[in-house]
Amino acid sequence: MRIKAINPNTTLEMTENIGKVADKYTSDEVEVVAVSPERGPISIESYYDDYLAIPGLLEEIRKDEGDFDAFINACWGDPGIDACREVTEKPVVGIAEGSMYVANMLGATFSVATILPRAKDLIEETVLTTGLASKCASVRCTDLTVVETETARDAAVEALLEASTLAVEEDGAEAICLGCAGMGGLDEELEKELPVPVIDSVGAAAVLAEGLVRLGKSTSKVMTYRPPEPKEIKGYPDVYQFTEPAPSADD
Amino acid sequence: MRIKAINPNTTLEMTENIGKVADKYTSDEVEVVAVSPERGPISIESYYDDYLAIPGLLEEIRKDEGDFDAFINACWGDPGIDACREVTEKPVVGIAEGSMYVANMLGATFSVATILPRAKDLIEETVLTTGLASKCASVRCTDLTVVETETARDAAVEALLEASTLAVEEDGAEAICLGCAGMGGLDEELEKELPVPVIDSVGAAAVLAEGLVRLGKSTSKVMTYRPPEPKEIKGYPDVYQFTEPAPSADD
Amino acid sequence: MRIKAINPNTTLEMTENIGKVADKYTSDEVEVVAVSPERGPISIESYYDDYLAIPGLLEEIRKDEGDFDAFINACWGDPGIDACREVTEKPVVGIAEGSMYVANMLGATFSVATILPRAKDLIEETVLTTGLASKCASVRCTDLTVVETETARDAAVEALLEASTLAVEEDGAEAICLGCAGMGGLDEELEKELPVPVIDSVGAAAVLAEGLVRLGKSTSKVMTYRPPEPKEIKGYPDVYQFTEPAPSADD
Amino acid sequence: MRIKAINPNTTLEMTENIGKVADKYTSDEVEVVAVSPERGPISIESYYDDYLAIPGLLEEIRKDEGDFDAFINACWGDPGIDACREVTEKPVVGIAEGSMYVANMLGATFSVATILPRAKDLIEETVLTTGLASKCASVRCTDLTVVETETARDAAVEALLEASTLAVEEDGAEAICLGCAGMGGLDEELEKELPVPVIDSVGAAAVLAEGLVRLGKSTSKVMTYRPPEPKEIKGYPDVYQFTEPAPSADD
Amino acid sequence: MRIKAINPNTTLEMTENIGKVADKYTSDEVEVVAVSPERGPISIESYYDDYLAIPGLLEEIRKDEGDFDAFINACWGDPGIDACREVTEKPVVGIAEGSMYVANMLGATFSVATILPRAKDLIEETVLTTGLASKCASVRCTDLTVVETETARDAAVEALLEASTLAVEEDGAEAICLGCAGMGGLDEELEKELPVPVIDSVGAAAVLAEGLVRLGKSTSKVMTYRPPEPKEIKGYPDVYQFTEPAPSADD
Amino acid sequence: MRIKAINPNTTLEMTENIGKVADKYTSDEVEVVAVSPERGPISIESYYDDYLAIPGLLEEIRKDEGDFDAFINACWGDPGIDACREVTEKPVVGIAEGSMYVANMLGATFSVATILPRAKDLIEETVLTTGLASKCASVRCTDLTVVETETARDAAVEALLEASTLAVEEDGAEAICLGCAGMGGLDEELEKELPVPVIDSVGAAAVLAEGLVRLGKSTSKVMTYRPPEPKEIKGYPDVYQFTEPAPSADD
Repeated sequence: MRIKAINPNTTLEMTENIGKVADKYTSDEVEVVAVSPERGPISIESYYDDYLAIPGLLEEIRKDEGDFDAFINACWGDPGIDACREVTEKPVVGIAEGSMYVANMLGATFSVATILPRAKDLIEETVLTTGLASKCASVRCTDLTVVETETARDAAVEALLEASTLAVEEDGAEAICLGCAGMGGLDEELEKELPVPVIDSVGAAAVLAEGLVRLGKSTSKVMTYRPPEPKEIKGYPDVYQFTEPAPSADD
Repeated sequence: MRIKAINPNTTLEMTENIGKVADKYTSDEVEVVAVSPERGPISIESYYDDYLAIPGLLEEIRKDEGDFDAFINACWGDPGIDACREVTEKPVVGIAEGSMYVANMLGATFSVATILPRAKDLIEETVLTTGLASKCASVRCTDLTVVETETARDAAVEALLEASTLAVEEDGAEAICLGCAGMGGLDEELEKELPVPVIDSVGAAAVLAEGLVRLGKSTSKVMTYRPPEPKEIKGYPDVYQFTEPAPSADD
Repeated sequence: MRIKAINPNTTLEMTENIGKVADKYTSDEVEVVAVSPERGPISIESYYDDYLAIPGLLEEIRKDEGDFDAFINACWGDPGIDACREVTEKPVVGIAEGSMYVANMLGATFSVATILPRAKDLIEETVLTTGLASKCASVRCTDLTVVETETARDAAVEALLEASTLAVEEDGAEAICLGCAGMGGLDEELEKELPVPVIDSVGAAAVLAEGLVRLGKSTSKVMTYRPPEPKEIKGYPDVYQFTEPAPSADD
Repeated sequence: MRIKAINPNTTLEMTENIGKVADKYTSDEVEVVAVSPERGPISIESYYDDYLAIPGLLEEIRKDEGDFDAFINACWGDPGIDACREVTEKPVVGIAEGSMYVANMLGATFSVATILPRAKDLIEETVLTTGLASKCASVRCTDLTVVETETARDAAVEALLEASTLAVEEDGAEAICLGCAGMGGLDEELEKELPVPVIDSVGAAAVLAEGLVRLGKSTSKVMTYRPPEPKEIKGYPDVYQFTEPAPSADD
Repeated sequence: MRIKAINPNTTLEMTENIGKVADKYTSDEVEVVAVSPERGPISIESYYDDYLAIPGLLEEIRKDEGDFDAFINACWGDPGIDACREVTEKPVVGIAEGSMYVANMLGATFSVATILPRAKDLIEETVLTTGLASKCASVRCTDLTVVETETARDAAVEALLEASTLAVEEDGAEAICLGCAGMGGLDEELEKELPVPVIDSVGAAAVLAEGLVRLGKSTSKVMTYRPPEPKEIKGYPDVYQFTEPAPSADD
Repeated sequence: MRIKAINPNTTLEMTENIGKVADKYTSDEVEVVAVSPERGPISIESYYDDYLAIPGLLEEIRKDEGDFDAFINACWGDPGIDACREVTEKPVVGIAEGSMYVANMLGATFSVATILPRAKDLIEETVLTTGLASKCASVRCTDLTVVETETARDAAVEALLEASTLAVEEDGAEAICLGCAGMGGLDEELEKELPVPVIDSVGAAAVLAEGLVRLGKSTSKVMTYRPPEPKEIKGYPDVYQFTEPAPSADD
């Protein structure tokens, strides 16, 4: 079983860590390949970054889609996740949704501890569109940039500890989702200090991706996630062009 | 890794099937033990049945809790799931929640195809308290009793096909959760006839339970799922008594 | 008119108090009989307690159902209320729902002042499933156990005063529901110190139960609250067995 | 105990019927006085009618407020109910809210069967602001005017039967609220033909009003329902003027 | 293009200011006429005031409806807005809804800074029925009466500054709606001190009213906003009487 | 006043029409410039198209941002609207939000009549994130592609007529939003046949954009819509690079 974990930003240190975490939690039958697009922002902290990262992310699914059994969208915000599901029948798991499902099975409520305050709205919209707003006690931001989650691990732990403690004590959170792929691997250290489970979102997505493959399930092609309508995409390379009509549900 | 799959009703044929399905989808590292309580209704179709099944279900967790790494609550309705999480630190996965998470990753909306109309309210309340009401297109009932899902497989397939077709065509469902543990194994046959993924709820819970164990996570004990307060439970056997105070979060 | 007020826990002092309160607020035409099951926890503070209390509660309705005109489910959490409505056509009123309706007619919002923090999720789920989440300003917990609400009345008043004051001043509550049957009779003392109405939940349920009987209404048997399907309930005494099929709505 | 039932429209036949129904369901200790304002529309079918009825309704509370223990606002839509609660400390019960509470205790969902389609939005907004939208299966309108509910009883029964049947069969309603004060007394006839409880909304409000008086509760004056701020109300008679400042919550 | 801006209260200084603000922001093609009813409260601070102002407001639309192209309902609370839409086909814009739409295009969330705390529930209900509750971070009240917003401009600015600062810093508001027509013109001064856009609600409604006229749109008469049913409105002058049946949608 | 109307797809006939409509409804003081990006899909019908259109759309705002007073995002779905607001202080109005605000002022509920069924989820998510889900009666799709809305006007009218009629008759819609920029100008023809107002979404956005400029308001830069964090955007041209840190709210 081969799973492609795509880091939608272009910081390779983060990609490497994502691969390690996904590999750690999946079974021996799984081979994880972690990649970044060539084009796009070095980190995703605004809606702007988010949208500029999506074309590269989609290319990473398209270009060797036949070689993998499932894909991981490794940015909390699950950028372009709906489009990812349009361009492949293989299961696609976002680390935001994945970590929320895991958290929702471990505590009566969860909070998300994440990066800069400006991302709060993006994070909350992700929770809303995933469908779990009623279980989310709060989104707690820090002063961390995405890059700092990789390069300043001690500061990251400290900031996340503070945010998570507030989430538990003031918002009633019973589990914490780590709201950035760069935080992969910090859960264990944080659990030493916190009275609640801390979810490594990359790990959560990895075990879910493996599970979906085990179940033998494919993405629904009946309506929303049908292949994109064939048409000209001006100024984009061939890998982005869809030229054949999607089969109708009646075929 | 050992996972105990508990069928909360007392029909052993169904228990056996639950065990087979859970075993089929988990990795080789997992040993599944499927059991039923000694006491309780032979099927769960009403709130009444649901509540009378819960004490036996809880006993099944309590009595050899140390021998397992995770538990599956194998009735769509996830009866007593909150209490299950109080009595063990091991992860507990309900087949209702598990199948909804899987469905939510495969289609933009899902429906639940299930048993008798009288269970509709119970099923909808399960969707609501799990937190995914906004993603559920409909709950579609049939004339099937729980027992018939095991004993009348052809009729069950036919009834579920009709309910699922209505869910897809009239309610816009893009994935179907099979809303009864007795329907385990029917997903493949249904997918041959339906244009959408069909989720075997027992299978979904099984891969999620394995995933939670791989992540090394435990149920949150900070608040809602703390061990029950120690007190006398009159007229119940020893296995139900909690006599030691739960450690406080500060310990 | 005879109303049976069932205390789902097995602490008889509390049962006695429930009877007194229900009797105090109903008219002279009403005879209140207050009882406890023989089996079950001495107090309900967790989901675990809640579920273990329900079988005994249901037995109390079943065993002499013909002798009463209505039933009161006297635990805030309205444990098993849906199943109660399945096993009788007589109206069943929960003290949680009853107190919320009364509060909702007296103030623009209400809060629930209740016992241990661990019960907060259970209380909130009760508010949600009753349908009044949008009117509930907050659930404010104390350090009181259920038993202390009966045995330590002064401490209970003090703790509830503090919780209610926070609800009014910080959450904007305009009425307070006392969130435990053991708090019956404390409303008057609390109203002396608080600027808002305080609802004795047992009293609220009692006047509603009398009202439903006056209206001559029965529980709806068309769907959700039909009698339980006839089937074997293994290991439960005869009083729990339903052997005759429920009449269909067409009969 | 004296309860004033105010019919906000100016059709006296309807007022008389409202008085009879309220009297029928309350205990012998209750004296019901049913009145209509002198000014206002002869029926309430639009938002326009609703708002023009409110000043007269408020005057009916103000003018002999000291002579009554509670008030009933007898129009489904509970017109001006918030203002009613501002001008008296005595409990005020609307027939919309009252009937919904009763219905919510008898069935898992309820529908409202009511007058002209144009009133649907007004009725739905009443359900929403009362807080029970999640329990309301549907609002089903008929071709009945308000006046016809009094003057054409047979046609009214027939139209309500059709609307209620659709509510039960297509919307899953398990109880029916009669959505107009003019429908008082039709519940019994409808229950003969329908498989669900039918709530006479005036009757429901009457037993709730008696219940609130029995509980000894007053409307909350801490915030929203404080007496109106003293000020000049130009062009309105003295009975509408509030000249003394409301006491602060600290007094 | 002629727009009638109706101040539903009877304080003429406020009316004059409303006219100036509406005129300031509309194009040269627009003539604004600002009026007050003759009857009604001098300010709207309670539900009581709100309802007593509505008949006069409706008269102001009715009496020379043919002379105007659109109407502005200039009280935050949009009193009787549904009835306003029943009595004319011309567009009617409330300053509450108008300011919320503008705010929703400028920030990810908005708060309302408004008058006395007692109005909070009325303001929140306005947000809810307009449909934008999910975007409203908070309603922040001050100690200002409506009249003080006109007569004590410095104190008003100070109080609004404090309320808005709390909304931004504690509630995460990214735009502020000024929640009273008397606050017209204070937005510029407040924006000097606040890091977020501040919406003059009268101005917002004015540009929207002009826009609706430019679009050539009329109020929908298919259902809810049909003309009031013809009937006797006892004790009200001729201007309030509707005597001709509304044309049916089929005509 | 100069407003730039950006058609996010690359079909120039549609761009031209968008310009005409926006010009038609704005005042003489407004100069409308309608453009398309050079790169991107020729129509937006899937999430995939939507995301591939956004980079070009953002470039159109960035490249001559100083020359305009406001921007229109002319695709129903408001693609990347949050990012648009990050890259400029000038107001940005989406045609989806704009048409919904207009519809919400004209009818008690609205529906969206739009293109292919596959876009339904995207349209519903737009309604949800704009905040108006509670006012949207339905999203009614047709068999129209985006291009057909321009090239097959008669067929488009016919299909929209059918969808809108169903929305009015079955879903209770009281106003219709035309859910595609290509439908600009069809409102008048549709209103001849339909009993409800039909909103030309481009027109609605245009008058709102003019209104925001008249109000002198800028996009909130306090939090979510701050300029993107400065960082390298690999493989994107200079116009996409943000190199200077955003000023903090304290500056």
